[in-house]
Amino acid sequence: MYRTHTCGELNIKNVNDRVTISGWIQRIRDKGGMIWIDLRDRYGITQLVFEEGSTSTELILKVKELGREFVIQATGNVIERISKNPNIPTGEIEIKVDTLNILNKSELPPFTIEDNTDGGEELRAKYRYLDLRRNVVKKAMELRHRLAIETRNYLDSIHFIEIETPCLIRSTPEGARDFVVPSRMNPGEFYALPQSPQNFKQLLMIAGYDKYYQIVRCFRDEDLRADRQPEFTQIDCEMSFVEQEDILNTFEGLIKHLFKRVKDVEISSLPRITFADAMKYYGSDKPDIRFGMKFVELNEVVKGKGFKVFDDAETVVGICAAGCSEYSRKQTDELTEFVKKPQVGASGLIYVKYNTDDTLNSSVDKFYNEEELKKWTTAFEAKPGDLMLVLAGPKEKTQKALCELRLEMGNRLGLRKPDVFMPVWVVDFPLLEWDEETKRYYAKHHPFTAPKPEHILLLDNNPGSVHANAYDLVINGVEIGGGSIRIFDRDLQKKMFHVLGFRDEEAEHQFGFLMNAFKFGAPPHGGIAFGFDRLCSLFGGTESIRDYIAFPKNNSGRDMMSDSPSKISEAQLKELNIQIKLQ
Amino acid sequence: MYRTHTCGELNIKNVNDRVTISGWIQRIRDKGGMIWIDLRDRYGITQLVFEEGSTSTELILKVKELGREFVIQATGNVIERISKNPNIPTGEIEIKVDTLNILNKSELPPFTIEDNTDGGEELRAKYRYLDLRRNVVKKAMELRHRLAIETRNYLDSIHFIEIETPCLIRSTPEGARDFVVPSRMNPGEFYALPQSPQNFKQLLMIAGYDKYYQIVRCFRDEDLRADRQPEFTQIDCEMSFVEQEDILNTFEGLIKHLFKRVKDVEISSLPRITFADAMKYYGSDKPDIRFGMKFVELNEVVKGKGFKVFDDAETVVGICAAGCSEYSRKQTDELTEFVKKPQVGASGLIYVKYNTDDTLNSSVDKFYNEEELKKWTTAFEAKPGDLMLVLAGPKEKTQKALCELRLEMGNRLGLRKPDVFMPVWVVDFPLLEWDEETKRYYAKHHPFTAPKPEHILLLDNNPGSVHANAYDLVINGVEIGGGSIRIFDRDLQKKMFHVLGFRDEEAEHQFGFLMNAFKFGAPPHGGIAFGFDRLCSLFGGTESIRDYIAFPKNNSGRDMMSDSPSKISEAQLKELNIQIKLQ
Repeated sequence: MYRTHTCGELNIKNVNDRVTISGWIQRIRDKGGMIWIDLRDRYGITQLVFEEGSTSTELILKVKELGREFVIQATGNVIERISKNPNIPTGEIEIKVDTLNILNKSELPPFTIEDNTDGGEELRAKYRYLDLRRNVVKKAMELRHRLAIETRNYLDSIHFIEIETPCLIRSTPEGARDFVVPSRMNPGEFYALPQSPQNFKQLLMIAGYDKYYQIVRCFRDEDLRADRQPEFTQIDCEMSFVEQEDILNTFEGLIKHLFKRVKDVEISSLPRITFADAMKYYGSDKPDIRFGMKFVELNEVVKGKGFKVFDDAETVVGICAAGCSEYSRKQTDELTEFVKKPQVGASGLIYVKYNTDDTLNSSVDKFYNEEELKKWTTAFEAKPGDLMLVLAGPKEKTQKALCELRLEMGNRLGLRKPDVFMPVWVVDFPLLEWDEETKRYYAKHHPFTAPKPEHILLLDNNPGSVHANAYDLVINGVEIGGGSIRIFDRDLQKKMFHVLGFRDEEAEHQFGFLMNAFKFGAPPHGGIAFGFDRLCSLFGGTESIRDYIAFPKNNSGRDMMSDSPSKISEAQLKELNIQIKLQ
Repeated sequence: MYRTHTCGELNIKNVNDRVTISGWIQRIRDKGGMIWIDLRDRYGITQLVFEEGSTSTELILKVKELGREFVIQATGNVIERISKNPNIPTGEIEIKVDTLNILNKSELPPFTIEDNTDGGEELRAKYRYLDLRRNVVKKAMELRHRLAIETRNYLDSIHFIEIETPCLIRSTPEGARDFVVPSRMNPGEFYALPQSPQNFKQLLMIAGYDKYYQIVRCFRDEDLRADRQPEFTQIDCEMSFVEQEDILNTFEGLIKHLFKRVKDVEISSLPRITFADAMKYYGSDKPDIRFGMKFVELNEVVKGKGFKVFDDAETVVGICAAGCSEYSRKQTDELTEFVKKPQVGASGLIYVKYNTDDTLNSSVDKFYNEEELKKWTTAFEAKPGDLMLVLAGPKEKTQKALCELRLEMGNRLGLRKPDVFMPVWVVDFPLLEWDEETKRYYAKHHPFTAPKPEHILLLDNNPGSVHANAYDLVINGVEIGGGSIRIFDRDLQKKMFHVLGFRDEEAEHQFGFLMNAFKFGAPPHGGIAFGFDRLCSLFGGTESIRDYIAFPKNNSGRDMMSDSPSKISEAQLKELNIQIKLQ
């Protein structure tokens, strides 16, 4: 028996109890005569006290051997503290230790096990098991666990059934790159690791399972950005006999449940916005709707006044920043610098100040007099005290740049509050995206997404104009989930493969088993998948998904702790019928 | 809106309601004038009725087009049935349909979608999505889901935290063969898929997580037997600051909870038996304790009477089958044939009948008179009416054969009741197993298992005699789980690697990151893992784990449905820096 209590549960009611606790030494304070030790475990910190004189000399000598992160077991009586710590649940008591057992020693850890550690990212990655001891990382793991169990219990309560789909599956080159696994028993052949359980969940619908979900590991062999991992986790869901509306309502329920149960936040409703409007008003299909500052198109108002920049631009579009008319020259210069950054990409910024005294002045006074500028204020519905910020250029690029500027202004004005959560459904996505390089259409969501029924005829002549029954869940400007109603008709699926440039044999080779299944009574169905790592980071309030993964990989796909991937033996390669051939 | 109700919920209270349901056609009965259709979904079966005359001719013509497994949507009024079916919840009503929508057609399925299907195993594997429609398979999936969610909620309630560990890990050749994954970004290097999260869960203990679990996919590239799959699922658990007793008690709680909640079976207590006793009394470390018939060793009783078979045997051991003294010659011959089968492996069977008239006769009357045989009855504690069955030969082989005979007798006497569940902990396993072929010790559990503290000194001189703090959970003769207290001392772990024949560099190369972690305060810890597929099959009452896996693979590791594994393109191979080299 290593402990009678954890380090998080003793309080004033336990005074005089004889207890044993075990844990790690967080801190030792030796004040000469008195020694205090903060003992830490998963549940909290409890103070141990040793007093020269009343504690035996032998024990004091043992205590003097101790160091940070030693694992010890301590037995003694709970006493009331003289100097209480109101910040922790155990802060009113301490344990007067009479028996001490060193369970394991520790070398000095390479960084401090504190919320604000002195360890750099690389060092913490190498010693991830020490990084995981830090309270912030532990909270992240606990949050992840809580989100998973609440997700499961909610979906279970509305009759979803979790079904595990295989990890060793058929490789289908469409989409991102597959990780592959050589099969020893089938020489020269390979499994792939799933990029998602898409085919399997559709087969489960054909099999009649009606409401499926799975919290499932997925794999993509992509070049990694900061927020991507080669393996990641999805909440993967699919339903039968549903239309888009049924799916949105069902998962609105899930999202509300998670916010209520995990963060005690009430989400009143999830507004919907079309893809077209999201682009028009926010310049992004991931709009942060915690604040307004919607885009206003100015083409009609500003063109034809001799200002070449506007006259030549495909679009002139701006936002109105309330209460910013008194921005200094330095501040407007900063904004100009911001939009000119390569990752934002605008060529310049025009501003109009609507002063509190009702006067107007702008960076384009030469071309637009006060009367003209008045028209701008009408378009922006601006009020005295506002600052109008305007960009001009090619439509897509300018929208993207203005989107960045809007978010920057949101940050500056404190409008992107971390404790406010505003989910929104983005709907009516285009079915296809044209790729200039390969001169072909790609599926915007994936090849199994259903076009809107009223658009099916357009597939032949104008596929680019076809809208899909596809939807994304966006929260605070972050895409948290996405899904679609699926094609369940064999002929339509065939047509879709044609539009995507598959030859019949290719489609048959890659997706024959799914096409075959469509012959035997496929029901109407659709689904959604949520990025679970991303959801955790949104709930946790930090940007990086890596913080919410116990053992993440770095940007080269390496686990720095175990130094993996690694070489394998010639014998292993031989058994697998492969050899290495470096390019 | 595809439905107002499912096919499982309408009953007599819904009479006169107007409803819409959707589903698959299970059966059509056309009695001329009246047509009945059984419509099936995940929730049940509801009867639809069409009556020539009162149903429109147009609708009747549509109904005549329908076939088995068509997906339809039907709207009509609920009416009370004349001929009720008390066997199903919807059996008192039917729907008089006035509106019918064919959602999808179906070709004639290649086998019947019935509990007793006419489809062979291979055909059902190829069309697994149709096999999954069968009620028995659906029940298996639902059972699996229920077991998973009850496991999670129980472990959550006692403060376990589910933490996901990586799937792309470092290859460690000790143990079974790894599946490996070439890394494109790290040319010439490979990830492995985890055989278990063993290292990671130990690191989580070192990280202070205290009570970890995960329902997790694991992978082993073994030659497959009927009940093995290349990927399988474990309930993987680990705890810190525990001794063996704490772990046994904790998971006794889980097992009782699962039986209570999922099967409404009360498990009163889990007895414990040592490995040595399990072998002595049952000839197996997986004893089926639903019935007695324990082994009785007869060496002292039977040797030295001139019967060479016994005199030369390492062991003479038998069981007493109560009430079988009147077995016919045919029956005892059958038993003899049974024990002589190659997979049982005995060379013959000796029996003694303790007749109800108190007389004794045996197959070795020549060597043992009634007085001698009386001694046997005493050893067996046999009663009149019993049949004693005795085997002789080399100890291990004979124990194994008698174990099979005992189970056979259990089957014949109906003592292995499918609705009785008798879990037992098998404890005190040997730490090591000697392998004659490679002339070295192997870890019986794995290299991280702790020897019993009082046996540590034996590691140097008599490693074979060291017992481990290792335990298995066995239910009805099936190993459901196993685990151990782990080594948490770096020096002891080093010694263990030595005993297992690792050179220092090998140990460092493979497990360096774990050994390193031991330097920084590893707590005492231990854990257990349960075979989740096996647990499902035990609860479901069938032998094959494949029935409980949505998309299983066959004995060659192939998914017959998607025909995977498969060839991949030259471009893929090139990107991965590998090429195929068939032996």
